[in-house]
Amino acid sequence: MRTRLTERFGLSLPVIQAPMAFVAGGALAAAVSRAGGLGLIGGGYGDAAWIEAQFDIAGDVPVGCGFISFALQERPLLLDQALARQPKALFLSFADPAPWLGRARAAGVPVISQVQTFRDACHALDLGVDVVVAQGGDAGGHGQSRGTMAFVPEVADEIARRGSTTLLCAAGGIADARGVLAALALGADGAVIGTRFWAAQEALVDQRLVGPTLAHGGDDTLRTRVVDTVRRIDWPGRYSGRVLRSAFVERWHGDEAGLQQDLPAQEQRWQAAVAEADMSVLAPFVGEAIGLVQARQSAAEVIASIGADLQRGFRHAPDAAGDS
Amino acid sequence: MRTRLTERFGLSLPVIQAPMAFVAGGALAAAVSRAGGLGLIGGGYGDAAWIEAQFDIAGDVPVGCGFISFALQERPLLLDQALARQPKALFLSFADPAPWLGRARAAGVPVISQVQTFRDACHALDLGVDVVVAQGGDAGGHGQSRGTMAFVPEVADEIARRGSTTLLCAAGGIADARGVLAALALGADGAVIGTRFWAAQEALVDQRLVGPTLAHGGDDTLRTRVVDTVRRIDWPGRYSGRVLRSAFVERWHGDEAGLQQDLPAQEQRWQAAVAEADMSVLAPFVGEAIGLVQARQSAAEVIASIGADLQRGFRHAPDAAGDS
Ligand SMILES: Cc1cc2nc3c(=O)[nH]c(=O)nc-3n(C[C@H](O)[C@H](O)[C@H](O)COP(=O)(O)O)c2cc1C
Ligand SMILES: Cc1cc2nc3c(=O)[nH]c(=O)nc-3n(C[C@H](O)[C@H](O)[C@H](O)COP(=O)(O)O)c2cc1C
Repeated sequence: MRTRLTERFGLSLPVIQAPMAFVAGGALAAAVSRAGGLGLIGGGYGDAAWIEAQFDIAGDVPVGCGFISFALQERPLLLDQALARQPKALFLSFADPAPWLGRARAAGVPVISQVQTFRDACHALDLGVDVVVAQGGDAGGHGQSRGTMAFVPEVADEIARRGSTTLLCAAGGIADARGVLAALALGADGAVIGTRFWAAQEALVDQRLVGPTLAHGGDDTLRTRVVDTVRRIDWPGRYSGRVLRSAFVERWHGDEAGLQQDLPAQEQRWQAAVAEADMSVLAPFVGEAIGLVQARQSAAEVIASIGADLQRGFRHAPDAAGDS
Repeated sequence: MRTRLTERFGLSLPVIQAPMAFVAGGALAAAVSRAGGLGLIGGGYGDAAWIEAQFDIAGDVPVGCGFISFALQERPLLLDQALARQPKALFLSFADPAPWLGRARAAGVPVISQVQTFRDACHALDLGVDVVVAQGGDAGGHGQSRGTMAFVPEVADEIARRGSTTLLCAAGGIADARGVLAALALGADGAVIGTRFWAAQEALVDQRLVGPTLAHGGDDTLRTRVVDTVRRIDWPGRYSGRVLRSAFVERWHGDEAGLQQDLPAQEQRWQAAVAEADMSVLAPFVGEAIGLVQARQSAAEVIASIGADLQRGFRHAPDAAGDS
């Protein structure tokens, strides 16, 4: 399946693997790129040594790298370090990408800007980024609340209105060929997939968490600031993180001030839960698409199954296929 | 374009016009049905005389009728009244549809059940409703927060798993052929469209509100309980209503207790704003898809343009069309 995204990046299907902080290392990114998608290292909050190690693991498979932009502000040298590895793309989210574009361009690295509001999409178009990703609120991890369904075509219309050559991808709630086809129908050139790759074998996820998480559905997730608060990560106020509900999260969601007051004790509880993989406390960052993910597969299997389903214009309900 | 929905209801395209309380009268419903969609009177909170009048206006054009189910609980005779008009469908949202199914079935009227969570979708499937509508949080009017993108295929999978004959529609953020095609790609048999018909000429909307509302985009809406509070409508706690932001809504959103305390004065302010069409106060119930609605058209024009775009597998961005 060819789209402007596959042409631009030399992919065999229009799928970008989300640069998930802590989760998307060089092994996942390389496996996705090798299979024909665009694999990205999740540079996240920016740990220079970790990022170096992940590029080493990816070896000579071309992968990109993502950053949480406000983290770059604190450690601007990280960008040069990443650009020195000649990444296939630089993926920036959650703050104004403007300060970083010049260096990426000078290095010949295309910039993908993930945005959560139409207003931010317009700003990214003003800047002339190569790809804008409209991220809906059902996405796993950090984001805001726009729904993917109306957000993507609204940005598509704006791109058309401007005659812009920026490409558009959809993110949030996409886990299989149905979501990719829906994204294309909405006017996107491709899809960013996170949650499904969270469950991939190559993801850097404590394997004790995967089975119990896959037993849940989309209803069992929520957007909250509890996990950031207990980890002492200071996110800008407009973002929250979509996680799997846990008793701990349910207890403190809406009572973040109380959590803040009892932070030392609760932080200890959280750390103990990390050690024990205690799912009454831990709340993995996954999106509503967790309800579409049935099994732990290799990234190659994920890509191959999406690719095969795309080929035959996949529709799950077999009765419907003949009629429409 | 044929799907199982068009076959079941004899439509020329897989589009259901949402039964919007106060907004969808007999003229809108009849215009949609005449044009080949499924038109529905918005029975809403249940005003017997109004509903009778709207069926009269629809005349012999076959239309359906929707109710906010918890309102039926207070006025159960409304259902018999509606069923006596042999509606094309009974559309129920926002509470357990179980108490009403027997009478609808006895009258030979198909039941469409709109749900906001996977759990409620499963309950509707247990009950054997004819159509389940998975409503995402970008929808205008009342609802919850699931994203349309992941919710629809999760329900499609459940229907397939059960081998159920219940049809599936998507609602929330769909305003044109792109959304309808996306809904079908996600595994639905059709789409429910509200916001775009809110702006239709036949909608019972104060015409002074339409232009200023259409000037806004999806970022300018939010889910809130402020409008219900000031109208003294007691919605069950899990629902909120998506509205266009106004200064009044921004003032009280998050401070509903304060609004409650000052209710008599604020209610007066609201009523005065209704009389004056004062958009600094009023907050029309519209969804994020308002960013996709450009003009006030007749319902027939809306349906014709969606139908034409569906025929040619519409993609807005012309460059992309050739490649994929
Ligand atoms: C575990 C996890 C971690 C994430 N971390 C990041 C991140 O560090 N930077 C980023 O831009 N997006 C991050 N995201 C969001 C993704 O970029 C993407 O928008 C999202 O995963 C798409 O929705 P989906 O999860 O429904 O596929 C993360 C998502 C997940 C699930
Ligand atoms: C003005 C307005 C009023 C609504 N009133 C009702 C209602 O009375 N009963 C109902 O089931 N849904 C109601 N809805 C929700 C619709 O059924 C539907 O889910 C929604 O409009 C779909 O999303 P969209 O607005 O993005 O098209 C209303 C929606 C709007 C915009």
